[in-house]
This record gives sequence, C-alpha cells and structure tokens, in this order.
Amino acid sequence: MDRVYNFSAGPAALPVKVLEKAQKQLVAYESAGMSVMEMSHRSAAFEEIIANAQEMLRRLMNIPPNYHVLFLQGGASSQFSMVPMNLMRQGKADFVITGQWAKKAAEEAARYGSVNKIASSADRTFAYIPELDTDTFDREADYFHITVNNTIFGTRFSSLPDTGNVPLVTDMSSSILSEVYDVNRFGLIYAGAQKNIGPAGLTIVIIRDDLVGTTLPGTPTMFDYKVHVENKSLYNTPPTFAVYIAMLVFEWLLEQGGVSAIQRLNEEKAALLYDFLDASKLFEGTVDRRDRSLMNVPFVTGKPDVDAKFIKEAKQAGLVNLGGHRSVGGMRASIYNAMPREGVEALVVFMKKFEADNI
Amino acid sequence: MDRVYNFSAGPAALPVKVLEKAQKQLVAYESAGMSVMEMSHRSAAFEEIIANAQEMLRRLMNIPPNYHVLFLQGGASSQFSMVPMNLMRQGKADFVITGQWAKKAAEEAARYGSVNKIASSADRTFAYIPELDTDTFDREADYFHITVNNTIFGTRFSSLPDTGNVPLVTDMSSSILSEVYDVNRFGLIYAGAQKNIGPAGLTIVIIRDDLVGTTLPGTPTMFDYKVHVENKSLYNTPPTFAVYIAMLVFEWLLEQGGVSAIQRLNEEKAALLYDFLDASKLFEGTVDRRDRSLMNVPFVTGKPDVDAKFIKEAKQAGLVNLGGHRSVGGMRASIYNAMPREGVEALVVFMKKFEADNI
Repeated sequence: MDRVYNFSAGPAALPVKVLEKAQKQLVAYESAGMSVMEMSHRSAAFEEIIANAQEMLRRLMNIPPNYHVLFLQGGASSQFSMVPMNLMRQGKADFVITGQWAKKAAEEAARYGSVNKIASSADRTFAYIPELDTDTFDREADYFHITVNNTIFGTRFSSLPDTGNVPLVTDMSSSILSEVYDVNRFGLIYAGAQKNIGPAGLTIVIIRDDLVGTTLPGTPTMFDYKVHVENKSLYNTPPTFAVYIAMLVFEWLLEQGGVSAIQRLNEEKAALLYDFLDASKLFEGTVDRRDRSLMNVPFVTGKPDVDAKFIKEAKQAGLVNLGGHRSVGGMRASIYNAMPREGVEALVVFMKKFEADNI
Repeated sequence: MDRVYNFSAGPAALPVKVLEKAQKQLVAYESAGMSVMEMSHRSAAFEEIIANAQEMLRRLMNIPPNYHVLFLQGGASSQFSMVPMNLMRQGKADFVITGQWAKKAAEEAARYGSVNKIASSADRTFAYIPELDTDTFDREADYFHITVNNTIFGTRFSSLPDTGNVPLVTDMSSSILSEVYDVNRFGLIYAGAQKNIGPAGLTIVIIRDDLVGTTLPGTPTMFDYKVHVENKSLYNTPPTFAVYIAMLVFEWLLEQGGVSAIQRLNEEKAALLYDFLDASKLFEGTVDRRDRSLMNVPFVTGKPDVDAKFIKEAKQAGLVNLGGHRSVGGMRASIYNAMPREGVEALVVFMKKFEADNI
C-alpha cells in the first residue's frame, strides 16, 4: 500500500531507504544466514554492527575521543534518574524548566539531591526559552541540565548557556543529529532513539570521560554508566535490532552529506512551514519566533472544532499524526530528518487549501 | 541466501514464519501506511498491537486476572534490582544459587537487603539442581527467588519449591512459554524476550496484584512496578517493534497449539539429543539426568581441541552458535521453541558423523 506522511513526534518516520534495506535483510542478514534479531550479541556479525554504529555516530557528531558513546535501554525517562544517580555527587544541580520533559527530569533529580530552578517558561505555556542570568548559576553544582529541544512545545535553545566548569547535561532526544552541536560544550548528552535515530527501546548516551565514576548508594548496577563504559554497552544484551536500524540511519545520514547538510535541509523545511504560518489568516504558530524548533512545529487556529476538522481531513489526505500533544491540544508537525521536503510541501499545500475553504 | 540452524542461547532463533510476516509488513503495516517502528505508541494501531500481545500471552500462559502483564525494558539484569527495590520491604529474601544468573540476581539483591542462600550447586559447576530443605526457608522473607531454567549450565527445576505464603519469584528468561507453568505458583515472573519470545530489548514481567505497592527509598520511577501497572506499560515509550514481534510469536505459538503442544515437541527435541548423548562414545552431557533443561543442552567431548574442531565443522555444516558459554567452554545447543525438530535432527546426524570420524 502507499505510505503516508507521518508527522508523529515519536516514535517517528524513518527514511524509506532504511526500511527497504532492513526489509531485504530481515530474514537473513548478509552472509549470516539469520536475521539480525536472531544474532547473539557476542557474535562477530553483531559486534561489527555495534562498532560500525558507534563509529558512524562519532563521525556524524564529531565526538571527541574523551567521550564515551553508550547504547542503552530505558529511554530518556530512565536517564532522568540515571543522570543524578551518577553525577549528583555534591547533591545539587541547576535546571532550566522549558517544558514537560524538563519538569519531569527535574522532579526525578529532586529525589536524589537539591534542584535549583534557574528559570522557567511555565508562565506562558512554555512558548519560549527564558533568558538566563549567569549570576544565578550555582558554580558548585554537580551539573546544569537543559532540554535543548522541547518536543511538546516546539521550542529550542538557539544558543547554549555558559556554565563554566559545571558540566552541561542535555536531553537531546528530539534534535540529536538534526543540527550541528559542539559536543565539547556538553558533559553528557542523552537521547531516546525514537525521534531522529531509530526504533523505540534504544537510548544513546554520550558522556565525557571524567564524569564516569562513582554512583550514589543504592544505584542499580544497570544504572551505572561505568559498568556500561567498561563493558562497551555489552554488560547485558543490548537492543540489538534497534542498534542495527540506528546503524542504517547513520549510514543514510552520511550519504545525505552528514549533519551540516541535513541541518540546511531541516532549516529549509522549517522555513516553509513557519513562513506559511506567519502569513496565514487561519493558522498561527504558538512559539516566540527566535525560539522556534526546527523539529517540532506547533500551531493552532484558535478554534478547537476547526483544529479537530483540520486533523481529521489532513489524515484523510495522507498527512497523519498532526494532533498536538494530549496535554496541549492544537496541532503539531514533527519534521525530523526522515521527513522529506515533499512531505512538508504537501502539508503546506493542504493547509493553504484548508484555509481557503474554512475562512 | 539459505538460513542456518541457529543454536544461540540468546538472542536466539525466531520462527521463519514470523520473520517472513514481519518482512512483508516492514515498510507499511496493514492499512497504517507506515512501519510499526514509525508508529506513535499512543496510536490506535499500536494500542491494538500491545493489547493483542498481552491478551495472547495471557491465553498462552493461562495468566489469572489478579496478575498484571508488563512490557518493560532493561532485560533480566534490570529485574535483578527492580525486584528487591519493589519487594524487599522487610529487607530479606531467600535465593537458590543454580548458576551465574542466579548468583548475579542474589548479588544485586544483597545491595538492598539481606540475602539468605538456601542452597547452591556451585560445588559441581552448577551441573544439578540442589535438594531444598523447606526447614531452611525463611517464612518471613519478602520473597523466594529461583532461576527456573539455567541457560548457561543447562539445568531446570522440574518441580517448584513450596514456599507457602512467601511469594516465589523466578527468572524465566530461557524457559518461558516452552513448557506449561502454573502462574498461580508464582508471585512474580520475569523474562528477557530474546530467548523464547522476540528481539532483545523487551522484558516481560508478570506480577501478582498484591505485590504492586511501595518501593524502597531512592527507587527510580522507571523501576517502580506500580507506575508501569497504572500506565499499562505506556508510562514512557515501550520498545514498540519488539512488542510487535512478540505478538507475532505469540500468534505463531497459538497456531502451533499453544504451550502444551510446544512442550510435547520440546520434550521430543530434547530427547533426541539427550538419547544420542547418553549412547555416544565421544560426547557426553554435563548435567545430572533428572535436572536436564529442555531448552539448553550442554555437552563436551572432554578434549578442548576436539570441542573446537566440532564447533568449527558444525558451523561449516550450517549448525551455528554451538560453543558453550564463554565462562564454561565445551558445547551447548539451545533448542528453544523456534528451533524446528529438523534442526535437532540435523545436529544429531552431524554429531554421529563427527563421532565416527573422530573416535
């Protein structure tokens, strides 16, 4: 059957070329005589897959050698505990509250130490990134946490806070590999794979060497970064098939010209949509212009019944998962790396027609 | 290319019919217009998949209504901490040490309370299941833990200890769905999916209602059974594709006649191999007869160079992953549900020929 344009916030669209390659290899991978799903994680064939995935990710993000790359399980939600259990050695961390996930991360960290909320954009439904006053930063904090791209509210840090010697930690789930980040600016980056990388169930952690060490008492062994570093992500059985799909996505990204090339395309795709929203008489974007995400574009008509009609008719036109997050309503188009320009163009064409018919 | 017979201990062989169905649906699932990997976990299509998976598993294992079925991440290794963090409310538990995984489970539990080792078979390299003296059981323990099938050493509890009111907890990773278990005998069952169910990255937990409750202080939210029960395994994004493959495996099992039918086949497959081993002049099984696993069959020639030659030549004959666990050496044939009888027959034919050539 025909494929739709899938604007889901995650799990999200994957490149068709990746899916077709995975399909071809699904029953028997190369000369292995078995599916990747059936491979021992200690087999030579799988060790090559995980080594390739790591090497490609290092190349794509230009990850310096003093950073470890881990392939874990449990999603960003597990990182909300794993980060403080490993890093909160003095018992305090700074947080910027820019949305629901940032809030959840801070709430979980508060169970392990003192959380200092530097700033929040809750006053205007997280529609912007707050200005940060570096004088309010705790220079003795164990780390400083931001959610660099906010999936639900569609905001993005366009510049990173200067945290000095305090390690900057970020949830990068919805923007990893979508634009160029300088990994050196971060102490630790974590990302659920299901938005810009691959299937749900894989979590990427990029951690600077000096942050790997002791954990808080009672930390489960599986939540100890050191255990995973020492075992090269093979302490226990990793989500092997998800690692394989991630490798195919990395390979595809390299073929596209890498992150800087995909960033240009993402900027063009986002501009198509934002320019239309700015000119529209029916739709409007909900986020302050300078803080707009390249990945998640929320918009509304201001009338819930018209929003509902739009989402329904868009779906009939093969433009699916355009409903906003269940906590905010309205619409949201997630346009990750795998969303082709044609998908965004088709959405804008449909929105124009819907506007003409409904104004 | 041709498929091989894969005797891997896990991740392990999957039914070819399941792989072929997944292959067909990989780029576009039914009428969804997208791969299962691309589906929002909150979409109607995926909610149907996870509901079906749960319903089929309940049917296959005859799971009573007062038990919850959870689809989690993190493998049995995460359960080693999650079980004590949820259940060790009085701070003590009984363990039977029947292998490396039982040992790991006990070591992890000992970080959260007092572990009472009821018995161990370490004295003879875990080649048997120790007799248990019920007088040594702590009737006030929070739970009693066994590893009902021991993947590495190839032993199996053929009868369950009577723990009275103390909940029996088991790691069932390598024997779930391979034989009929009375779920009522257990308080909690956990199993990594990658042996008898589906891809690595999915963990099944079956927990009796009354055991869901408070956790030890400092337990990560993601390690709280109650959170996952209340959110029907959708607290965070579950490993959606792995759940889907599990559903296909459950469907396949139902088509085979369910667990009692597959148990008969598993008994026949195991008998083929054990009968040959018992008659062989070159090979011998390493486990006491009455404690032999139906799933994992370790054997040796007694000569490491002959073992190595066997593993190498078997591989050339399309019988792969027959090496024993890296900690014990020798050979091991894992013959889970998805290993067809023809695979075991081919192995026995090959072993006979190898014996004739090497004795």
